[in-house]
Amino acid sequence: MISEGDLVLVYVDERRSRVVRVVKGKTLHTDRGYLRLDDLIGLEWGSSVRLSTGVTAYVLRPTLTDLMFKFFKRVTQVIYPKDLAYMVLQSGIGEGSRVAEAGVGTGFLTAVLAWTVGSSGHVYGYEINKEYIDVALRNLEVAGLTSRVTIKNKDITQGIDERELDALFLDIPNPWDVFPHLHDSLKPSGTVVVFVPTLNQVLKILSQARESKFLVDVRVSEVILREYQATTEALRPRTIGVTHTGYVITSRYVKKAKTQET
Amino acid sequence: MISEGDLVLVYVDERRSRVVRVVKGKTLHTDRGYLRLDDLIGLEWGSSVRLSTGVTAYVLRPTLTDLMFKFFKRVTQVIYPKDLAYMVLQSGIGEGSRVAEAGVGTGFLTAVLAWTVGSSGHVYGYEINKEYIDVALRNLEVAGLTSRVTIKNKDITQGIDERELDALFLDIPNPWDVFPHLHDSLKPSGTVVVFVPTLNQVLKILSQARESKFLVDVRVSEVILREYQATTEALRPRTIGVTHTGYVITSRYVKKAKTQET
Amino acid sequence: MISEGDLVLVYVDERRSRVVRVVKGKTLHTDRGYLRLDDLIGLEWGSSVRLSTGVTAYVLRPTLTDLMFKFFKRVTQVIYPKDLAYMVLQSGIGEGSRVAEAGVGTGFLTAVLAWTVGSSGHVYGYEINKEYIDVALRNLEVAGLTSRVTIKNKDITQGIDERELDALFLDIPNPWDVFPHLHDSLKPSGTVVVFVPTLNQVLKILSQARESKFLVDVRVSEVILREYQATTEALRPRTIGVTHTGYVITSRYVKKAKTQET
Amino acid sequence: MISEGDLVLVYVDERRSRVVRVVKGKTLHTDRGYLRLDDLIGLEWGSSVRLSTGVTAYVLRPTLTDLMFKFFKRVTQVIYPKDLAYMVLQSGIGEGSRVAEAGVGTGFLTAVLAWTVGSSGHVYGYEINKEYIDVALRNLEVAGLTSRVTIKNKDITQGIDERELDALFLDIPNPWDVFPHLHDSLKPSGTVVVFVPTLNQVLKILSQARESKFLVDVRVSEVILREYQATTEALRPRTIGVTHTGYVITSRYVKKAKTQET
Repeated sequence: MISEGDLVLVYVDERRSRVVRVVKGKTLHTDRGYLRLDDLIGLEWGSSVRLSTGVTAYVLRPTLTDLMFKFFKRVTQVIYPKDLAYMVLQSGIGEGSRVAEAGVGTGFLTAVLAWTVGSSGHVYGYEINKEYIDVALRNLEVAGLTSRVTIKNKDITQGIDERELDALFLDIPNPWDVFPHLHDSLKPSGTVVVFVPTLNQVLKILSQARESKFLVDVRVSEVILREYQATTEALRPRTIGVTHTGYVITSRYVKKAKTQET
Repeated sequence: MISEGDLVLVYVDERRSRVVRVVKGKTLHTDRGYLRLDDLIGLEWGSSVRLSTGVTAYVLRPTLTDLMFKFFKRVTQVIYPKDLAYMVLQSGIGEGSRVAEAGVGTGFLTAVLAWTVGSSGHVYGYEINKEYIDVALRNLEVAGLTSRVTIKNKDITQGIDERELDALFLDIPNPWDVFPHLHDSLKPSGTVVVFVPTLNQVLKILSQARESKFLVDVRVSEVILREYQATTEALRPRTIGVTHTGYVITSRYVKKAKTQET
Repeated sequence: MISEGDLVLVYVDERRSRVVRVVKGKTLHTDRGYLRLDDLIGLEWGSSVRLSTGVTAYVLRPTLTDLMFKFFKRVTQVIYPKDLAYMVLQSGIGEGSRVAEAGVGTGFLTAVLAWTVGSSGHVYGYEINKEYIDVALRNLEVAGLTSRVTIKNKDITQGIDERELDALFLDIPNPWDVFPHLHDSLKPSGTVVVFVPTLNQVLKILSQARESKFLVDVRVSEVILREYQATTEALRPRTIGVTHTGYVITSRYVKKAKTQET
Repeated sequence: MISEGDLVLVYVDERRSRVVRVVKGKTLHTDRGYLRLDDLIGLEWGSSVRLSTGVTAYVLRPTLTDLMFKFFKRVTQVIYPKDLAYMVLQSGIGEGSRVAEAGVGTGFLTAVLAWTVGSSGHVYGYEINKEYIDVALRNLEVAGLTSRVTIKNKDITQGIDERELDALFLDIPNPWDVFPHLHDSLKPSGTVVVFVPTLNQVLKILSQARESKFLVDVRVSEVILREYQATTEALRPRTIGVTHTGYVITSRYVKKAKTQET
């Protein structure tokens, strides 16, 4: 049952789909008509309602990605679900994992990490920009994930405070500068996941990882999403859209071998 | 510390990476030399070891996808991480969710779902082929996920036994035949995620979903993974590989509106 | 040497690249400065010139695709080089070929066909919209290709006037309606190339081609172009762009076999 | 009408499609039955014939790409139609153009260039491996293109003999080593088209082109082909295939500006 203060996804159609917080006396305006939010209180989730014009809308419980894309305040470039999902699954983290992340930015990755580690895990976020931290904390609050996250106003290339982490996620321009700090922070066998937009960065990461001798099983991937115009009469991929986001590089941290062969 | 009976990812290089169970007296043979598994007992995770030839290998804790691709027995076509990850994130499920899935097959999706819902959630799997169930259960056992899963030898197109599910995942040839059974099983506002290989199926799902009037926010996507040859000197996508798996269709289940406009 | 009346590609940088006709007394204005076109007369092709601000520009002989994208007037959706090039190569046409095409629209495909068949070939274009014909003829005039093309204000689904054509190109919503007219028009063994945006059209073409029994070697392809941001420091695909144009379907026209097996 | 000595594409179905030379007394064997080639003599192109088993086949005039993929002898990695077509269209060459190319290899690009420049144009091919030249010449002979091509057993990085070329095509590992020789060989405003498999090569080409100051309008593209399984009942992209070939880099050669701004 929908209560005052709840976040609701009001779905009219593909283009008219908004997340709103139910506040008494407030009205949601769309170009297909308006909706008094008072009228949502007491409705069951998944009910249909009528806009002022008689057009049907549905009141849905927002998923995490609905919240991220339709309610989170955005202050930086964000990572998309196609990349977030792949990064998290390939990292091997799950219920109870302890992970660090930099930079936090708008907090999209932070939210998905916090969601994934569950109530028994924890996410340590590093962010050098104070203003981003305020936004990220507000966004995590919206998603009900604050208790699983600690965000620090620190430059992760200067060192990682935590010990025995299961995984490290890096979405910063110079991820290789964090490699020297892995030793005391990451569990041997832990995962390092990097997301970078350019091929120059990929090449630098590969050469620094190889030189380091403690990052193995390095894999470079690009996840491409083709979204279709979901109509029965004219099915086809959308014509204009995102053609590039970045490269996902996963690797495993190991204890440096005393001698290495080539 | 590695103990007898543990599953270990022995990583030599990109092409020589195997998951083995540590059994006393057993030997792992590779074309770069062999490794006595006795020697792994007592080692720290992430340690380096030497194959008989002196070549270095690393002993890593396998992630879920390492287990799936390097230890699970496979009896059916499987869903790849690129698709699994996207399906799960977009479904909105997490810690504590209760979900149903059909067909189970080899159990890749089952394993990822069980991983995602955590120890407080549950996965109900439907599979019409008894032999697949045995394999899937063995695979889930390997991943330590059995307690979170119930697999039934039932045809989901005949009905869903559970009530108030958070999400339903369908990887069967005729997912539309399950739509009439959503009413009593899925929470209104719950998610239905379908994975199908052909465009004919996509078109049929779209038309049946529209006709049903209780599936909204229908999105059709294709996730494409480009894996790179991760070398510093000759970075490029792999030259031969998987060029198609299937289409991911997500939708939300709603209570049917009494009157509908077009 | 550049003369009055010539078409010149003035290249400043990636974003500032324009085709202009050299007319005495005219000035080309850019946001990096202006250029008096009088100053181009007598210059060698490939020379550098200075804009009013001192910024260097280059005067290049426009290629056909430069003209198409930077000088042709556009009145319809056009086919892109990635698709045009593939369609033409796979059609097997070349010097001296006689081909028909519908619809002409803006004339991009017409121009590439006329370019390909050379001075000894000919292109017959069908277009039902008179206004498009005027634009297409003006565009072909610009490219110096008018003598190789005949454009008719006719609906090709009503019949094809020509005989013994080497190939037929269809960029209309209902290409299957032209199939009954192939018999008297196309050389047996000739090629039919279709371009359509939706998968519903692809399915209909496949079923009509199969039913017809005179279209064989049917191939369906999609050509995807990834354009890179060509910088030495930050090489990566462009971030936003065209994600779908259409499907290319090629087939060969044969004499119907008297009896067919399935 | 098919005569002795003609090259014929015998098309049975998608997987059974072969180019053969009609030689009296010879037989074409397929796993669906055999065909006496004598029986083809005198048939019209596009006719249907019966294999020994009664299965229908069609006798088609091979297109250039049919010949390339189904009759050319192959000794090197080849460039695919998706890339060839795009390279040629974007180069701006056509009827009467004079172009140089290196390395010739199997001659796929050479054949498409010779086809494109027509009987009034010419292609100068450079190839350091004598054995490849023999194969390429045999292949061009098959395609009837020999008179338009001159192949030299020379290393193009040592210099280009021709003058006033319209375009230069480079499919060699170190294309940048040819840049110093452009000055006396290419018409100012001419096009340089490079095809390379790795991103390291792309980066080196970009940096050398920029340093040279005589290559402008540099564009980096990747052409991706998705081939569909062309069935009416189960339309979908093929599941396994080529996932990478190379990058196409086009640029225009200009006269070096005396002073350059950054």
